[in-house]
Amino acid sequence: MNDATFLREAIDLAREALDDDVGGPFGAVVVRDERVVGRGRNRVLADRDPTAHAEVLAVRDACRHLDTHDLSGCTVYASSEPCPMCLGALFWARVERIVYAVDRQGAAQAGFDDARFYEQMCTTENERSVRMEHHADPEARRVMDAWSRRADRRSY
Amino acid sequence: MNDATFLREAIDLAREALDDDVGGPFGAVVVRDERVVGRGRNRVLADRDPTAHAEVLAVRDACRHLDTHDLSGCTVYASSEPCPMCLGALFWARVERIVYAVDRQGAAQAGFDDARFYEQMCTTENERSVRMEHHADPEARRVMDAWSRRADRRSY
Repeated sequence: MNDATFLREAIDLAREALDDDVGGPFGAVVVRDERVVGRGRNRVLADRDPTAHAEVLAVRDACRHLDTHDLSGCTVYASSEPCPMCLGALFWARVERIVYAVDRQGAAQAGFDDARFYEQMCTTENERSVRMEHHADPEARRVMDAWSRRADRRSY
Repeated sequence: MNDATFLREAIDLAREALDDDVGGPFGAVVVRDERVVGRGRNRVLADRDPTAHAEVLAVRDACRHLDTHDLSGCTVYASSEPCPMCLGALFWARVERIVYAVDRQGAAQAGFDDARFYEQMCTTENERSVRMEHHADPEARRVMDAWSRRADRRSY
């Protein structure tokens, strides 16, 4: 098994998402030790869930199978470059490597907002199209501090 | 009902996540027309799901209740600044406004990687800690093009 084989499986899932009309044309697989441990295809439309992207679903599938929130050592193969939400999910999952086929500009040509959202993500709050407001709150700070003080807290 | 009331509900959910030890100290609510339509608290540890952040779960909860993937016109109140994954989710959900209490530096003080992941997100691929590789593939391009050509495609 090699990169091309796993990437082809991700692309096949993208094709299925398209053919079954469950969401955008995106698929992803999570691989550990040369074995697929999680699969996902975009289901935004079928599930009416804007977070149901291929990579998010593949991560959740892999975590269920491996019974852990930590995918260290895994490679993710995606039919397209992960959007900011999905890249964030892959960071939190601690995956080691990401291989993708279509890049964000290619997705933009098909009408998807990935490239625009990367720009939004990396600009200041007042330059974003979404309104963002920081309301500092002492109780919120206390909750965060209580986590910091907890001796048996499990980091992730 | 006002911002302070809704933000307090998000902070209460953060406190509950902490007290029940289901995940990090984070909570969020989605509000439409002065009414809470979705709630979430971090469940990364209890669900062994790295994507189970408060905002993601609140968005999914709101979408279930409203039976749509589109949260246009909604405001999200979060106990902490949304991480890149969550901000991406809020972009895709098309929320109008985001109000948060603790910022990413405050979360970093408690040991969370949000600020670091924002830096990772906004740098070039070869400067990231995760290995990323772009393998252009004609079949992946064909799947994307097939989406573009579909006359009845539903954008999201």
